[in-house]
Amino acid sequence: MNLLLFSAADLGAPGQLQISDERLQHLHNVHRAAVGDSIRVGEIGGHMGEGRIAELSAARAIITFQLDCPPPAKLPVILLVALPRPKMLRRILRSAAEFGVEQLVLFNSYRVEKSFWQTPVLNDSTLRSYLLQGLEQSRDTMLPPVTLERRFKPFVEDRLPGLLQNRRGLLAHPAPTAAAAPDHANTPLLLAIGPEGGFIPYEVEMLQKAGLETVSLGPRILRVENAVTALLGRLLSPGC
Amino acid sequence: MNLLLFSAADLGAPGQLQISDERLQHLHNVHRAAVGDSIRVGEIGGHMGEGRIAELSAARAIITFQLDCPPPAKLPVILLVALPRPKMLRRILRSAAEFGVEQLVLFNSYRVEKSFWQTPVLNDSTLRSYLLQGLEQSRDTMLPPVTLERRFKPFVEDRLPGLLQNRRGLLAHPAPTAAAAPDHANTPLLLAIGPEGGFIPYEVEMLQKAGLETVSLGPRILRVENAVTALLGRLLSPGC
Repeated sequence: MNLLLFSAADLGAPGQLQISDERLQHLHNVHRAAVGDSIRVGEIGGHMGEGRIAELSAARAIITFQLDCPPPAKLPVILLVALPRPKMLRRILRSAAEFGVEQLVLFNSYRVEKSFWQTPVLNDSTLRSYLLQGLEQSRDTMLPPVTLERRFKPFVEDRLPGLLQNRRGLLAHPAPTAAAAPDHANTPLLLAIGPEGGFIPYEVEMLQKAGLETVSLGPRILRVENAVTALLGRLLSPGC
Repeated sequence: MNLLLFSAADLGAPGQLQISDERLQHLHNVHRAAVGDSIRVGEIGGHMGEGRIAELSAARAIITFQLDCPPPAKLPVILLVALPRPKMLRRILRSAAEFGVEQLVLFNSYRVEKSFWQTPVLNDSTLRSYLLQGLEQSRDTMLPPVTLERRFKPFVEDRLPGLLQNRRGLLAHPAPTAAAAPDHANTPLLLAIGPEGGFIPYEVEMLQKAGLETVSLGPRILRVENAVTALLGRLLSPGC
């Protein structure tokens, strides 16, 4: 936890947080915090700043704070990922928030097992908790919106064109003819990543018809979660 | 499993494998394999090629094969990672092999918990099994050597200079003054990544004195495993 995120529910008085949940445990067990320690805090959806621990017990922490710093810029990327198995989904949710993507779309594809759509990870509150873990890691306060698209064809035909407005669309696909994946994000991007086993030819064709260019990271087939972080890692720069 | 890896112990007759362990389970449960199916096979440390399932039962598979293809080129990178907690270590071992690093060095640092060195993941056979999972994923046969360096100072003073011969050394460290992490691997690299919480100033100084240049991926603090895949992902190209 590099940033203690809070919402209005955590406010005692103005400029004062009262914390008694797992964040308190983390302060005790990981930070080994003491009264007087300073800690980075951020309001979910708002600014970040410095907090100071004014009271600390096994039952609660009182933290006074001032917010004076906007969150870091987002990576100008809409990330589309074919819904992965739950274990991998948790890591991808955290990573998408951690790397600062603008928006995440989880979509269906032929090789997505139907049961994956039943996972409790997709419940609003669980999904949000994984995104918050990513924001806490990389010190950001802005939750990326997550959209679930349970049907491939209507999504690609009806809604993908809207997402692609003023945006370069890329399809990660290890085809020998594909261009290199980009190494900067000077223009807004949309990046689509397939399921384990890859897209089927019909899906590749549909996505290309919608305007996505095929890009590759070379002959090595990466696990989906590693393809996500490898592709996003190429777009990071010291400036943003 | 995009590649069925085997060793001499799996050879029945020349050009014929006999498989009866978890790889057999994988053929049944994931590949839903049948007699006559073809499958990519590779000899650990050797060539890769096409196999064909000649016999298949609950007890064993007989696979005939021919090896005609060398493994893919390695990324010209020696990866140094401060020993992470076991759960993260497993993923980093898989990823290091999957991305094709030449060599992996796990080393001690002030913020590495002593207990991490006791993990059974570091047993030779367990460590090897995680590396093999990475090779199976990205279709490679060459296990990267893994070195354990339990003492920071003797490692940095006595052995790091040898690793740095004819190699550019980089230290991933989110300092505001750091240069951008490289986006190609035209020259051999050595890449050092710190523990959760980062290197302490003394360690940064020692590593810089040894010749490592500080590089950054920007202000976002990434989890160690994501820093590894983000940095390696920048070095991948369609050609290698």
